[in-house]
Amino acid sequence: MTARLELSRLSLNQITIDQCSLPEAIEACARAGLTVIGPWRHKVAAVGVEEAARLIRAAGLRVSSLCRGGFFPAADAAGLRAADADNRRAVEEAAILGTDVLVLVCGPPVGRDLDGARAQILAGIERLLPHAEAHGVRLAIEPLHPMMISERSAIVTLGEANDLAERFDAPRVGVVVDAYHVWWDPRLYEEIARAGRRILGYHVADWLVPTTDRLQGRGMMGTGVIELRRIRAAVEAAGYDGPIEVEVINRDAWERSGDDVVADVCEAFLAAA
Amino acid sequence: MTARLELSRLSLNQITIDQCSLPEAIEACARAGLTVIGPWRHKVAAVGVEEAARLIRAAGLRVSSLCRGGFFPAADAAGLRAADADNRRAVEEAAILGTDVLVLVCGPPVGRDLDGARAQILAGIERLLPHAEAHGVRLAIEPLHPMMISERSAIVTLGEANDLAERFDAPRVGVVVDAYHVWWDPRLYEEIARAGRRILGYHVADWLVPTTDRLQGRGMMGTGVIELRRIRAAVEAAGYDGPIEVEVINRDAWERSGDDVVADVCEAFLAAA
Repeated sequence: MTARLELSRLSLNQITIDQCSLPEAIEACARAGLTVIGPWRHKVAAVGVEEAARLIRAAGLRVSSLCRGGFFPAADAAGLRAADADNRRAVEEAAILGTDVLVLVCGPPVGRDLDGARAQILAGIERLLPHAEAHGVRLAIEPLHPMMISERSAIVTLGEANDLAERFDAPRVGVVVDAYHVWWDPRLYEEIARAGRRILGYHVADWLVPTTDRLQGRGMMGTGVIELRRIRAAVEAAGYDGPIEVEVINRDAWERSGDDVVADVCEAFLAAA
Repeated sequence: MTARLELSRLSLNQITIDQCSLPEAIEACARAGLTVIGPWRHKVAAVGVEEAARLIRAAGLRVSSLCRGGFFPAADAAGLRAADADNRRAVEEAAILGTDVLVLVCGPPVGRDLDGARAQILAGIERLLPHAEAHGVRLAIEPLHPMMISERSAIVTLGEANDLAERFDAPRVGVVVDAYHVWWDPRLYEEIARAGRRILGYHVADWLVPTTDRLQGRGMMGTGVIELRRIRAAVEAAGYDGPIEVEVINRDAWERSGDDVVADVCEAFLAAA
């Protein structure tokens, strides 16, 4: 049996209420009694990373992970250098925010060069790792759903993310298991078990039927067809007992008040995650 | 090097010109100098299967495969019986149309029961196989892109299709490799090699960036990011030298004349498939 969740395990991934600034999201979390948040870098940048860290601490919150580094593939050397520089800043921001997990959304191929993208991703992680280690930050490769391959990530299965992570000594490189991105995979449960202690984060949302928006059409937990309880049980059996980020990227939710969405998040988390 | 294609390898999958009836599609193929067609059952039913077979033969065409059997998962025994009956008719229609390949689009899960769907698919193929063998028809499992899992198929990787096919003696159960459905897979080339002589069909289309329609937004070969030449080379190296079906499911193309679309199909096939 999977243990009943407590709200103390819930981390609000900020994109779930993208209509809110980071200060507004922090306040919404605090009002709802939440203690963990997963900020996105553009929201952090809007207030400045030092001020963001101060606001988060002042509200009694901690950070589960920073979203996101990655986007490694580039068409030329200048592009690779720009990506490297941005990823080094992402590591530094994670450290300032007090989290040791930087989520890597690895980036799409340049044109048709999928093998090249995968090689550039490996090389990019290799170049970034010393800087991450120096800052006490772990790199968490997040495989994304194959339907997002050309916009977001050439890494589209947990098996591939595990292959990549295993090129490096644990625990500095690991993976994020996002139920929305991986639930369809016939190899899911064996790859979760294989990831084991390399699981650095677990994200939840639900797969709506029909899915009307390929990038921003996720459902709240319990409104779709993902076996969320079963996947959580597998993630926990693999050894993960950290925060569970609710990352419901849904255009419609962004039309509502942040507090309303957070209330739904809490209810759905307890009932269905 | 991949050999240059000739139009004699091209099979027009009928859905590419869904705006046409089967007689209209047959005439469009004949006018374009094509010799192979891949009809869909609802179009065959509209004229009757015997008449469809007569029209196809009279136009000097042959049938590469019949689309489609499958849709095995059902919520109850009555649903399973209905699926079985329909699949037996599909086998009979394939035989009448003179093709020995019935494409299986295996069907989505009922609700959240993905394991159950996979088990029902295996059981459904087991029940159908004797009837297929009696009619000289091979069953070709087509894995579909994971973004279509809840509408079309619980079988979403070539690896999974190979696992299923290998439960049965070759050559009566095999797979269809559709580049659009499998191009993203990091295990693609090893699974194509593994499929070997079980490859009963090869389908092409292209992945548009962005993809604006999840089910009906495929591109003509050469307009997207799939490494079509490389995938064809792998399929041919695995031993497949049969027809290549052009299956471009695109809403916009259905607004044009069938002849115009077929002209584009021929040009794109020679230039980019």
